[in-house]
Amino acid sequence: MTNPTQFNVQAITPSYWRVTFENGPINLIDPDTIEQLSDLITRIEQDPHLTVVVFQSANPDFFMAHFDLLSDIQRVYTTAPGPTGLLPFSDNLLRLSRVPVVTISAIKNRVRGAGSEFVLNTDIRFAGADAILGQPEVGFGAVAGGNPMGRLAELVGRGRAMEIMLGGDDFPAQLAAEYGYVNRVVADDELDDFVDVFARRIAGFSKAAVAGAKKFVDEATAIPAGEYAAAMAAFRRTAMRPENADHLKSLFDRGLQQPQGIELDLGQQVALKL
Amino acid sequence: MTNPTQFNVQAITPSYWRVTFENGPINLIDPDTIEQLSDLITRIEQDPHLTVVVFQSANPDFFMAHFDLLSDIQRVYTTAPGPTGLLPFSDNLLRLSRVPVVTISAIKNRVRGAGSEFVLNTDIRFAGADAILGQPEVGFGAVAGGNPMGRLAELVGRGRAMEIMLGGDDFPAQLAAEYGYVNRVVADDELDDFVDVFARRIAGFSKAAVAGAKKFVDEATAIPAGEYAAAMAAFRRTAMRPENADHLKSLFDRGLQQPQGIELDLGQQVALKL
Amino acid sequence: MTNPTQFNVQAITPSYWRVTFENGPINLIDPDTIEQLSDLITRIEQDPHLTVVVFQSANPDFFMAHFDLLSDIQRVYTTAPGPTGLLPFSDNLLRLSRVPVVTISAIKNRVRGAGSEFVLNTDIRFAGADAILGQPEVGFGAVAGGNPMGRLAELVGRGRAMEIMLGGDDFPAQLAAEYGYVNRVVADDELDDFVDVFARRIAGFSKAAVAGAKKFVDEATAIPAGEYAAAMAAFRRTAMRPENADHLKSLFDRGLQQPQGIELDLGQQVALKL
Repeated sequence: MTNPTQFNVQAITPSYWRVTFENGPINLIDPDTIEQLSDLITRIEQDPHLTVVVFQSANPDFFMAHFDLLSDIQRVYTTAPGPTGLLPFSDNLLRLSRVPVVTISAIKNRVRGAGSEFVLNTDIRFAGADAILGQPEVGFGAVAGGNPMGRLAELVGRGRAMEIMLGGDDFPAQLAAEYGYVNRVVADDELDDFVDVFARRIAGFSKAAVAGAKKFVDEATAIPAGEYAAAMAAFRRTAMRPENADHLKSLFDRGLQQPQGIELDLGQQVALKL
Repeated sequence: MTNPTQFNVQAITPSYWRVTFENGPINLIDPDTIEQLSDLITRIEQDPHLTVVVFQSANPDFFMAHFDLLSDIQRVYTTAPGPTGLLPFSDNLLRLSRVPVVTISAIKNRVRGAGSEFVLNTDIRFAGADAILGQPEVGFGAVAGGNPMGRLAELVGRGRAMEIMLGGDDFPAQLAAEYGYVNRVVADDELDDFVDVFARRIAGFSKAAVAGAKKFVDEATAIPAGEYAAAMAAFRRTAMRPENADHLKSLFDRGLQQPQGIELDLGQQVALKL
Repeated sequence: MTNPTQFNVQAITPSYWRVTFENGPINLIDPDTIEQLSDLITRIEQDPHLTVVVFQSANPDFFMAHFDLLSDIQRVYTTAPGPTGLLPFSDNLLRLSRVPVVTISAIKNRVRGAGSEFVLNTDIRFAGADAILGQPEVGFGAVAGGNPMGRLAELVGRGRAMEIMLGGDDFPAQLAAEYGYVNRVVADDELDDFVDVFARRIAGFSKAAVAGAKKFVDEATAIPAGEYAAAMAAFRRTAMRPENADHLKSLFDRGLQQPQGIELDLGQQVALKL
């Protein structure tokens, strides 16, 4: 790869990694992210000692913003499928959900769209009190491509999954925890320590026991690969339609994908037709 | 139809309807309700512009009381099946859950029995702080006919679904939200505005995106038609047994189906054997 | 049976039993418990009048501690399968979940491991404010044998089930209720009355209605017998491995299975490697 590394892996101990994501001013997800994440997941799958991985962000305002709408989206559709037979973005999500280690998202501030889909496919989501989660795709005229519909339906139930997906609004940490979108909320300045203590605890357990128990929870809540494929197909059908163009232009005019623009308040802004 | 319209449809915009239910002094559900609801669902299914429908009640004390036990219940069993192949009441519930628009129940005050089954098959339930929900069928000696067992199991989990269905008690809004029976609670005098803002937001989104995303949540939480049929059969087997008659008479003596009788406190009253 | 009765059955009325568990100083579950529970479940299955059973503990500090690691565990694996075809411990859990009566756990203080698996297979869990629940198996190097992974995934969702099972920590009543691990929390000194009122209510209902409605909730949330078998096999593969021995010895040295030792704080203690 000639691109800079977006995932910085720190091996705290042989059984405990901390992975820090950083990509541009607002931590967008682009085709390079997908490629690098695929490699990282392979490393996680193959390491014989690894038991727990914490994902965090180097950006104080964005855990992961969302997919980069100015990147080469055709690359997402035309890159060869991954080991699951799915296109690489979906392949990442499904493989991530199955890795034989515990994956934890330590969420500070904003995580939306494809970023929300990433955290939904980690095992555990701990959120700082200022965290904000959302799936704004419907506001862009699109069906979300990573099938958060499936994960949210299982986590928060049909009614709240409908509200999150069809309202497309922001969900602050406390409401997200009440709904079950995240496991629980921790004060922002205590989140790192809380997650570290939790991760070290698991890092000391037997990998066979941890991976063995996870497999049962995973299989009880598994989403068929075909559902991931269908969601990506629905995204592809809806995301770049000509009828979405005017609103998309208006959003870019108002600062979409920029650190000081509407990204700070995207849940509200995406519904404003100006 | 020669009966007065129970569902008053107000098209706020081409993509946003508000439907107000009104039927007698306590908003009972009767065979006419079922017939009219079937027609309304067909209109919702077929309208090409409609994106969101809000259901509300004209009655300040009852969103929907429950099935009218003095109506011609044989008509429920003998009317020709609807498009799903189910008897009309079950057919309504299943078709309602699948309409290609977002359906929202704005619940003020009491909704029980068949009324609760109605709101459980809308997509989203927002409740005023004075709302009360319940499935009192077990207190009448019957298995609930609209299969709220299936919807509640998915929404609130096995343990709480058992408590709601087998206890047959009233669930005030706050407890209902803690359990996941409703999405969230809003102050009674703010509910209309809250729901209107939410509905207008969705009304401005692309119908293709909204209906497309809903389909994934619906399919992830779908209840097989056979389960609706089995619940209706169980209701029919249990509801009008001779051994239920004395208690039913006592309930009518105490004001069942009257606005000022035990309907105000049905959760408690249905369990009192006098 | 030549062993003392661990389950004391009190028939409050013909339709309402209260069952009190007592086994040694911390209410461990051993092969005798499994055998006696099997007999009790058969009585519950066959009684024509019984509608509701409340399970409580005679021990002020432990509802059920966990499986007795000093008992004859080979007996668990070699006793003839029960009616479901599963080994007796798993057979008990699956049959318990299906009995045609409502089963309620009135949980005061600690319930962990196999005890937690027991309460997860009763229909309803009401917890006193001082209750503590947990699945510490991973801290012993084992996959839990009673498949709490399946029940918890359904009750609390994938993310929180992962946290409970892979963290192996204690969950105090309030957090357990927020997650959905228990139905709700009641003040410790009000729990008995609360549960008694609830049970008497159901005891007055028609058994046909209660058992009929329960069957729908049970089937909507059923766990295949094969999953129980797979969990027991995973426990057997992982629980007594030589690499677990040093930590297990350390835990016994610190008071495992004794009333005043680390059992009071097992969630924390099981993760300390001394």
